[in-house]
Amino acid sequence: MKISIIKIGGNVIDFPEKLDEFLFLFSRFPGKKILIHGGGVLASKFGESMGVMPEMVDGRRITDKDTLDIVTMVYAGLINKQIVAKLQKLKQNALGMTGADGNLIQSKKRPVKKIDYGFVGDIKSVNTDLLESLLEKDIVPVICAITHDKKGQLLNTNADSISSEIAVAMSSKHTVNLYYCFNKAGVLIDEKNDESIIPLINEEIYRELKNEQVIHSGMIPKLDNAFAALHKGVNHVWIGKAENLLLAVKGKVSGTNIENHKYDLY
Amino acid sequence: MKISIIKIGGNVIDFPEKLDEFLFLFSRFPGKKILIHGGGVLASKFGESMGVMPEMVDGRRITDKDTLDIVTMVYAGLINKQIVAKLQKLKQNALGMTGADGNLIQSKKRPVKKIDYGFVGDIKSVNTDLLESLLEKDIVPVICAITHDKKGQLLNTNADSISSEIAVAMSSKHTVNLYYCFNKAGVLIDEKNDESIIPLINEEIYRELKNEQVIHSGMIPKLDNAFAALHKGVNHVWIGKAENLLLAVKGKVSGTNIENHKYDLY
Repeated sequence: MKISIIKIGGNVIDFPEKLDEFLFLFSRFPGKKILIHGGGVLASKFGESMGVMPEMVDGRRITDKDTLDIVTMVYAGLINKQIVAKLQKLKQNALGMTGADGNLIQSKKRPVKKIDYGFVGDIKSVNTDLLESLLEKDIVPVICAITHDKKGQLLNTNADSISSEIAVAMSSKHTVNLYYCFNKAGVLIDEKNDESIIPLINEEIYRELKNEQVIHSGMIPKLDNAFAALHKGVNHVWIGKAENLLLAVKGKVSGTNIENHKYDLY
Repeated sequence: MKISIIKIGGNVIDFPEKLDEFLFLFSRFPGKKILIHGGGVLASKFGESMGVMPEMVDGRRITDKDTLDIVTMVYAGLINKQIVAKLQKLKQNALGMTGADGNLIQSKKRPVKKIDYGFVGDIKSVNTDLLESLLEKDIVPVICAITHDKKGQLLNTNADSISSEIAVAMSSKHTVNLYYCFNKAGVLIDEKNDESIIPLINEEIYRELKNEQVIHSGMIPKLDNAFAALHKGVNHVWIGKAENLLLAVKGKVSGTNIENHKYDLY
């Protein structure tokens, strides 16, 4: 089957009106689909109100025991269930999950090297059978950024990684398109100008743009991740604003399409 | 199929060691099973640490907007996912859900009469198809005390009611046994003596025990609920301590068995 995997982050989740608008668009999104979400600033906000301060290293949250409890509450509880209830209203048969539910995503606690990330999990395997059986029943999986190690421990896992790992795993039998909703309109030539979208990036263009330092810092792991997914069988990756998601499906230029032209050479 | 529905409350959930012990017993419990849980004192504790004080009327929590957010976080997030992760370790393919997930339990916000209970839902319908398809795949549904109105609103719903409504709904096609894990060893002749268990209660005995005021106050709605479930097709109801659950399955006297002898008269 053809499956769309759509990832949203804080720039959608943190704003109730934006979230509602996105969920409406998502409900109109055709075909089999999976929604993946992170947590945004809510986890930090709740943590602070309970006296647990967020600790970040290189833009990544350090997940101690209290922080894990809070992200579990906020991601898997509040945000996930509010999204599910709203999608149910929009006649989408949403079912919210963490990676522990139905053993959907098994991960491994990240080994301590220079930094001890705490209860952070790197993905080992995805239960594609479960996702297939849900999609076949027209259920819409809504997956949050929590996984488990199958030894009883929940783990915090990056939502971008969950999206690409699920996309890759489902690609072995299905045609999978991956949509990253982002705080910018796509990959931009001029960061400050949302009109300067680069509509298509293949590996050649990517190399050039990196050389010219048009693409730098935070965009590099995002694009590396996208190309890695394409190399492992994902059909198509899109990066753009949540509100332009439906335009993307209709084939209109509305963000950056990432394609792996290597395959065209053979 | 034969289905066991097991309900636990605060007296198990609030104590990590008791919860672990219970989950081990639950993992040894034979056949198809569903676990239903409330929230215990954790929701009040987290609420207080965030400045939201629990308001109770007649032993029922008044659920304002902040309280609903907290119970959603604690029940559907923290407790549900910790239970699921622990059951996964015990080789039980647990999948945690609220009533919103897969439209499992649709409820209606309780109308305001003398008391405004706030965001509390009374159950309207149970999606038995979804439960059947999960049980057929040997998935163990772990359901928390949150439902939805299918209009986008999550609602707080009593876990005893969720247990009996699911039991009744599943009884139309299946043999359903309902186990209420309780803070006492069963229905007792002397409340202070855990040895004074009444092993069997039918409606005649129930009437007598009520007349003699052996059964009073909080036990009455519990038993009314049990008999109502039996009248609507549930096969068997058991009330007892979580640690005696496996004895109950083996047919040993370990709690109170509630039976509907009316059916024997025909």
